[in-house]
Amino acid sequence: MSTPIELRSDNAAGVAPQVLAALATANDGGAMAYGGDPWTEELREVVAEAFGAPDVAVFPVVSGTAANALALSAMSPPWGAVLCHDSAHILRNEAGATSMYGGGMQMNGLPGPNYKLNEKSIKAAFASAQWGDNHEAQPTVVSFTCPTDFGTVYTPAEVAALTALARTRGLKAHLDGARIANAIASLHCSPAAITREAGIDVFSLGAIKGGTMNADAIVSFDQEASDQLYYRLKRAGHVSSKMRFQSIQLITYLRDGLWVKLARQANAATVALARGLTDRGVDMLAEPQANMIFAKLEPHVSQALAAAGVYFYDISPGVIRFVTSWRTTPDEIEDMLRRLDVALATKKTGRRSAR
Amino acid sequence: MSTPIELRSDNAAGVAPQVLAALATANDGGAMAYGGDPWTEELREVVAEAFGAPDVAVFPVVSGTAANALALSAMSPPWGAVLCHDSAHILRNEAGATSMYGGGMQMNGLPGPNYKLNEKSIKAAFASAQWGDNHEAQPTVVSFTCPTDFGTVYTPAEVAALTALARTRGLKAHLDGARIANAIASLHCSPAAITREAGIDVFSLGAIKGGTMNADAIVSFDQEASDQLYYRLKRAGHVSSKMRFQSIQLITYLRDGLWVKLARQANAATVALARGLTDRGVDMLAEPQANMIFAKLEPHVSQALAAAGVYFYDISPGVIRFVTSWRTTPDEIEDMLRRLDVALATKKTGRRSAR
Amino acid sequence: MSTPIELRSDNAAGVAPQVLAALATANDGGAMAYGGDPWTEELREVVAEAFGAPDVAVFPVVSGTAANALALSAMSPPWGAVLCHDSAHILRNEAGATSMYGGGMQMNGLPGPNYKLNEKSIKAAFASAQWGDNHEAQPTVVSFTCPTDFGTVYTPAEVAALTALARTRGLKAHLDGARIANAIASLHCSPAAITREAGIDVFSLGAIKGGTMNADAIVSFDQEASDQLYYRLKRAGHVSSKMRFQSIQLITYLRDGLWVKLARQANAATVALARGLTDRGVDMLAEPQANMIFAKLEPHVSQALAAAGVYFYDISPGVIRFVTSWRTTPDEIEDMLRRLDVALATKKTGRRSAR
Amino acid sequence: MSTPIELRSDNAAGVAPQVLAALATANDGGAMAYGGDPWTEELREVVAEAFGAPDVAVFPVVSGTAANALALSAMSPPWGAVLCHDSAHILRNEAGATSMYGGGMQMNGLPGPNYKLNEKSIKAAFASAQWGDNHEAQPTVVSFTCPTDFGTVYTPAEVAALTALARTRGLKAHLDGARIANAIASLHCSPAAITREAGIDVFSLGAIKGGTMNADAIVSFDQEASDQLYYRLKRAGHVSSKMRFQSIQLITYLRDGLWVKLARQANAATVALARGLTDRGVDMLAEPQANMIFAKLEPHVSQALAAAGVYFYDISPGVIRFVTSWRTTPDEIEDMLRRLDVALATKKTGRRSAR
Repeated sequence: MSTPIELRSDNAAGVAPQVLAALATANDGGAMAYGGDPWTEELREVVAEAFGAPDVAVFPVVSGTAANALALSAMSPPWGAVLCHDSAHILRNEAGATSMYGGGMQMNGLPGPNYKLNEKSIKAAFASAQWGDNHEAQPTVVSFTCPTDFGTVYTPAEVAALTALARTRGLKAHLDGARIANAIASLHCSPAAITREAGIDVFSLGAIKGGTMNADAIVSFDQEASDQLYYRLKRAGHVSSKMRFQSIQLITYLRDGLWVKLARQANAATVALARGLTDRGVDMLAEPQANMIFAKLEPHVSQALAAAGVYFYDISPGVIRFVTSWRTTPDEIEDMLRRLDVALATKKTGRRSAR
Repeated sequence: MSTPIELRSDNAAGVAPQVLAALATANDGGAMAYGGDPWTEELREVVAEAFGAPDVAVFPVVSGTAANALALSAMSPPWGAVLCHDSAHILRNEAGATSMYGGGMQMNGLPGPNYKLNEKSIKAAFASAQWGDNHEAQPTVVSFTCPTDFGTVYTPAEVAALTALARTRGLKAHLDGARIANAIASLHCSPAAITREAGIDVFSLGAIKGGTMNADAIVSFDQEASDQLYYRLKRAGHVSSKMRFQSIQLITYLRDGLWVKLARQANAATVALARGLTDRGVDMLAEPQANMIFAKLEPHVSQALAAAGVYFYDISPGVIRFVTSWRTTPDEIEDMLRRLDVALATKKTGRRSAR
Repeated sequence: MSTPIELRSDNAAGVAPQVLAALATANDGGAMAYGGDPWTEELREVVAEAFGAPDVAVFPVVSGTAANALALSAMSPPWGAVLCHDSAHILRNEAGATSMYGGGMQMNGLPGPNYKLNEKSIKAAFASAQWGDNHEAQPTVVSFTCPTDFGTVYTPAEVAALTALARTRGLKAHLDGARIANAIASLHCSPAAITREAGIDVFSLGAIKGGTMNADAIVSFDQEASDQLYYRLKRAGHVSSKMRFQSIQLITYLRDGLWVKLARQANAATVALARGLTDRGVDMLAEPQANMIFAKLEPHVSQALAAAGVYFYDISPGVIRFVTSWRTTPDEIEDMLRRLDVALATKKTGRRSAR
Repeated sequence: MSTPIELRSDNAAGVAPQVLAALATANDGGAMAYGGDPWTEELREVVAEAFGAPDVAVFPVVSGTAANALALSAMSPPWGAVLCHDSAHILRNEAGATSMYGGGMQMNGLPGPNYKLNEKSIKAAFASAQWGDNHEAQPTVVSFTCPTDFGTVYTPAEVAALTALARTRGLKAHLDGARIANAIASLHCSPAAITREAGIDVFSLGAIKGGTMNADAIVSFDQEASDQLYYRLKRAGHVSSKMRFQSIQLITYLRDGLWVKLARQANAATVALARGLTDRGVDMLAEPQANMIFAKLEPHVSQALAAAGVYFYDISPGVIRFVTSWRTTPDEIEDMLRRLDVALATKKTGRRSAR
C-alpha cells in the first residue's frame, strides 16, 4: 500500500521540531511550580511584544476547548448569551464546555454566509433580544472563529466593525483563534491587527494545531477577565504544576515569527491542493482562505481516495475535509492529486455507500 | 552564594530524562487526535498490567487537581459529600475544584491522627449523617490521600479496612495518588495492593510529581465512573488533542517500574535528611514515610537556612517543609545538613521575624 | 375609560376561588414541615388516581420554570442535549434555567410546522448527532410543550409516536405542561392519555396558569428521576417548609376535575374570540387549539385596541397575543370584539408607531 | 390521648390569620405577572420604610434556603469562601444549596462559643487564609445566623464589630434571618439596627417561620448583588408568576409591626418554658434568647414526654429541641410543664433507647 498522506487534522501532525527541541532547555535545575518560573514570565513578554500590549495576561492551557470555555466564563455572568456563528466550534464541537464552565451560560448560533457573522446577523440578534428582561439570557459576548471551522477568514476590518457594533450594546469580544496563525499568514496582517486592534478582548492562541505539543493559551487584554481567569483556571485543574514546559513551547512557537512561518507552509499546501481540485472540477463548500478545504466528492470517489492511503474526514454525505499542516509538503500534495486522479476515474458501483 | 538545593516541591524538580527523551518517539508521522492513537492504546495496556486490571480505563489529564476533581464528580451525584481527612489536598488546596466540577458537591473534612482517616472518624461521620434526609449532603465517596499531604502513608490493610467500612453504607472509594509511587516504594507493595486490591475504585496516578512533564492520569476500575469521565473530561477541556504525547510520558514512566525506582531515590533522600534532622534534635510534625518532611525550626534558623541557598516552603509559624525528588542526590542532602549546622549555630536576634 | 379586559396572560387572572378558599382548611393546628403532612400525602393519591399511576411521585414547586428545569436536570447527565421545538419556552423564555440546573446541559431547538416537533425533525436530529462522540452533547431527552407557546396542541397519538421514536435511541420524554389542562380540555382526552399513556416520563402540571396561587408540580413516572428530584429540589430551595399550603391548592385544583372545568371555560373564550376575529378577517399565526391566540393586527389597530382598555402582549411587529383564562367571561369577549370593531375602523396615521 | 402540643418547629405552626385573610385582597381582577403588580411595588416601600433604606431591593422567594443560597451566590464569585459559624444552617442543613447556586463556592465553618462567630474566629480565619493564592478559595463573605440555629442572638454591636472587621479584608456581610423577628423582639431593637446599621449587605427576611405561608424574601442593600439577583432568581425558577400573592403576605406580615408582635408571643412562650425547665433542674445547651430551647433530657424522659403528646425534635443523644411560635399559648406551656413533671417522674428502664 502507498505511504499515507495525512490530511485529517493539524492535530494529527505532531509537534514542530523546534518546539520539541526546546523542551530540554527548561529542564535544567529546579523552578517554582505553577507558573512562578522565568519561562512563564518570559512568555508574557513575548506575547506582549507580539501583540503590542504591555499589560497583556497569558494563561497556558492544555486545549483549545479549555481556552475558549474558560475565557468565555470569565467574560460574562451566567445569565449571559454568547453570540456566535451557527457553525462555531464552541457551539457545535465542545460538548457544552462553555455552558458548563459558564454556569449555564447560553450560546446563540446566528446565521451568516461563508460561515461568518456579519452586521445583519448581529443586528437581528440585537433587535429580537429582550434586553433587561430576566426571562431571557442577555447577550454579553460576541465570539468570532477565525479562521472559521470551514476555512474562511474574517478581515481585520470585518472584525473591527462587528466588535464596534457589539460594543454599542456593551458586549465584549472573544476570538476562537484555534488556527489564528493561519489567518494571520493568509491576511498578511500583524497579530495585533486581527485581535487587539480589531477590538478583541480575549482570545485563544490556537498554538497546538499550529505546532506545539500541548500548550495552548488564553490571551487577555481585559483586566476584569484576567483577574477571574487566575482563579477559574486553578479550580478547573488547568494550571500545570510544571508550567515552564508549556511556556517554553509557546515562547519557541511565537519567537521570531515561527508560528506564522509554520502557518504559511500549511496555507501554501492548501492553496496548491485547492488549485488541483479546481483544475479537476471538484467543487468546494467555500473558498479556502486558510489551511482547510471542504470538497464535494461523490462517495465512491472519496472511498477510492481513502483506499489509496489519503487520510481525511467525512463531514456530511458528499463532503470531505482536508486539513494541511506545517508538515504537509508540496510533494505530498502532488502525490495526493495523482491519487485523486485515479479515484475520480473509478466507476460508481450500484451499491449505496454505507455511512 | 552557594548552589541552590531544591527542596521546595517535587513539582520543581523537572522531568525525568527518560520521559523527556521518549517524547520524540511519538512524533514520527501523523496520528489520530484525541486519543485515537496507538500510544494511548498501549498506555491502557501498560496500566492494566501494572494494576492487574484488564478492564481498567485510563484518562490522561494535565494536573492532579483535574484528576481528583473530575474523578470525584464522576463518582457521586451533586448532593453527595466526599469524606476526607481534614488536611486533604482536595479540601484545602484545590480552590473548590471538586465542588465546581461536582455541581456543588460537598467535602467533609474528618479528624484523625497522623493526617489519616481511621475507623473512628468514619464511623462518627456515619453516625451523625442524616441518611436519606434531603436537608443534608449524603456521604457518597471516601477519599484517601496516600501519601498524605504531611508525608505519612496508609498501609494496604488500613485502606482495605476503611473501604470495606465505607462500602457498608454504599460509598465508593477514591485515592488522591499525587505521590502514590512514593507510597508504593515506601510500603514495598505492589501497585495493585494499595489501590485495586484495597478497594479503591478510582484514583489519580500522580505522575507529574513523580517525574513526567504534564501527564497525570485518572485510573478507573469503576465502569460507571469511566463512562461518565469520557464525556466529563472533554467538556472540561481536559482531552489533549495530541494525547499521544501525554501517553508516551505515562508509558515511559510506568514501564519497567521506572516510577517506583524514581520514587525510591526520592524516599531515600528523605530518609537521609530525616536522620540528619533527628541527629540534630530537630522535631518533625510526623514520621516521614515518603518524600516529605515537616520540620520544626525556629524562624531565625529557617531564615539562615534559606539565606544559605536551601529552598523550602514555610508552612506555618515555626514549621517548614522539605520535599525530595528523583533528582535529589545524597550529596545534596549532606550539603544541606552542613548548611543546617551553620544555621542552627546562628543566634536569635532581638528582631521579630517578619512573615 | 372602559373597564379593562384582561387578555395578557393566564398568570394575570388570579386564583380560582375554590383554591383560595381551601387554603384555610390546611391551617388548623400544626403539621410536619417539608411535606411530612397529610395533605401532601393526599396529593400524591389524587395525582395517582388522576393519571392512573399508583407509583407516581409528585413534587410541589413554585413555578413552571422550576418544574421544567429541575425535571430535566434529573432526566439527563450534564453532557446531554434536550431536543425541543425551536419555539419552546424552556429554550426561549427561561433564561437558561435548564442549563444552569443541568450543569451546562444543552437545549437543541428543532424546526417543525405549527410550533410542534414531528417525526422529520427528530429523525434529522438523530441523523446528524455524533452518537457516542464526546465532542458533542448527546441527545438524552425529548421535550414537548403542550399546548405549545403558540396555542397549538399535540394529539396523544402524535406524542406517543414521537416518544416511541425517541425511545429507539434511549431518550426519555418530558412534557412542559404549563397549560396541560387546556390541552386535555381541547382534546377531550383523559389526563393519562396525553402524558403517561403517550410515553411521557416526567412533566410539569402547569397548575398556576390553570388557577392555583403558587403551586405547580413536577409529576414523575420515572423512579430514577424521582429519586434525584427529592435531593435536587431541596438544594434548589424548592421545598416549601409549609408545603401543605401548596398541596391543598393542588388537591383542590385536581379534585373532581376542577382543573379541566376551568380550562374549558378558558378554551371556550378563545373559541369565541377566534370566531370573532375570523369573522372580521383578522389572520392568526396558527389555529388556536387551547386558550391562546396570536393575531395579526396592524400597529394602528392594536394601539387603538390597547387604548380602548383591552390588555394584551405585543409579540413581534404586527402580531399580538391574547390569552383567555378561567376568569374570562362570554360578555368580556363580546365587549372586546365591539372594541375591536372600533379599532379596526380607525385610520392609519402617517406616523410610524414607536415600539 | 392528650391534645398534642406542637413544639417541633415554627414551620409547623401554620399561617398567621392576618396573613391568610389578606390573600383574598390581592385576587380582585388581573395584574401583571412576575412582579409587575402594585402589591410588589408596595412591598418594596414597606421594606424601605421598615429598614430605613430608600433604595432597598426586595425579592420574594418560597424558602429560606433559596433566600440564603441565591443571596450568597450574588455576593461572591464562585471561588469565594463564605465564613460562617460551624453550626450555621447554610453549612449544615441546606444540602449544599450555596455551593450549587454559587458554582462550587465554599463554606468555611468557624468555631465560636454560644454558636456565634466572634472576633477571634474571624481573625484566625483571616490569618490562615492564603490571600490572593489561587490554590485556595478566597474569603469573600461573612454570614451570620441571627438568631443562631441554637437560639442565641447576636447584639447589633457584635454584628457591627464583625462586619467592620470583615470589611477590612473586603468581605461583604450576609445575614440568615430565618428568625430575625425573634431576634428583633428579643433585642428590643429596630429592624435596621441588626441589619443595615450593623453593616449587613443582604439578608433573608425569615418570614415563613415568622408567620407567612410561603413568602420569604431576600432584602438587599447592595446594588451589585441586587442587579444579579434579578437574573439569578428567574433562572432558578424563583420568580412566582403571581408574585402579588407573596407580596401581600409580606406586606401584611411587616405592616404595623405585626412580625415583631408575633415574634414576641413566640419568645414569651420560650421564656416561660425555659423558666419551667430551669425550675425543674433541666439543663440547656445555651441560654434561650429567642424562640428555641435545646434541653438535655435523659432518653427515658424525652420518650415519656413524646408519649404524652408533646411534639419536639431529637437533636442528638440526650438533647431535644423545643421551638415556640406565634401560635403557642401560655396555657400550652403550662400544660406542657405538667406533662414534663410526669415524664421526669418515670423510671429509667433497663432497655437502651433505640434511635
